[in-house]
Amino acid sequence: MTATIPEKFNDLLASNALAHIATIGPKGEPQTSPVWFGWDGTHFLFSQTKGRQKYRNLTRDPHIAISIVDQKNPYLYLEIRGEVVRIDEDPDKKFIDQMSKKYTGQDKYGNNQPGDERVVIVVQPEHITSMGI
Amino acid sequence: MTATIPEKFNDLLASNALAHIATIGPKGEPQTSPVWFGWDGTHFLFSQTKGRQKYRNLTRDPHIAISIVDQKNPYLYLEIRGEVVRIDEDPDKKFIDQMSKKYTGQDKYGNNQPGDERVVIVVQPEHITSMGI
Repeated sequence: MTATIPEKFNDLLASNALAHIATIGPKGEPQTSPVWFGWDGTHFLFSQTKGRQKYRNLTRDPHIAISIVDQKNPYLYLEIRGEVVRIDEDPDKKFIDQMSKKYTGQDKYGNNQPGDERVVIVVQPEHITSMGI
Repeated sequence: MTATIPEKFNDLLASNALAHIATIGPKGEPQTSPVWFGWDGTHFLFSQTKGRQKYRNLTRDPHIAISIVDQKNPYLYLEIRGEVVRIDEDPDKKFIDQMSKKYTGQDKYGNNQPGDERVVIVVQPEHITSMGI
């Protein structure tokens, strides 16, 4: 099952709004946090390190929900529900650098920590809820 | 178990940033959406109608996670995890009108629908994750 996201959300998906992701924690409880995100036209993408709780959550349970609100219009928002369909290694930190460029203008992400193992979480949308325009 | 939220977040909790809430859906999947919120110094509060999925989710499973990012500083954020400890009826729509005032400046919420049964969801924070300042 794949949800197609209406074209009217293209600008929002290309914007540097933060996305708030929700995952399921080890006791079945919801967890949420803001992330930088990318959109390849079909998949929602974001960077994580393997040490993070969100990474552990998603390798245990691939279900994810994503909430994105337009920065200029709080009545334009998109909720995407879906599943992680792939986790790509990012050994050269190419993707996190892309996100750094998108969100901060800096070519290189400046906050790498020793031992960080970066991955790209790839989410396939299955259902959307939206408001606006 | 109650988490005390550091005073440095008082401004964020008093601001009209949106909060993104994460709840557990009927199949155990995460769901998320933005909400207007209030803060009484101890509890996180938001309005819902009884017809909404989030209301049904929270009456089934009271666990909730909340993500709030400062509107001016995206590196200042707060995640609250906790439980719904009370659901108050809002028959006179006093609370949703307060939220309307806070977020839109209008004394009365302008989007009530026929038959809406408004409630106030009262969340007790149990754990926080934060970044910033």
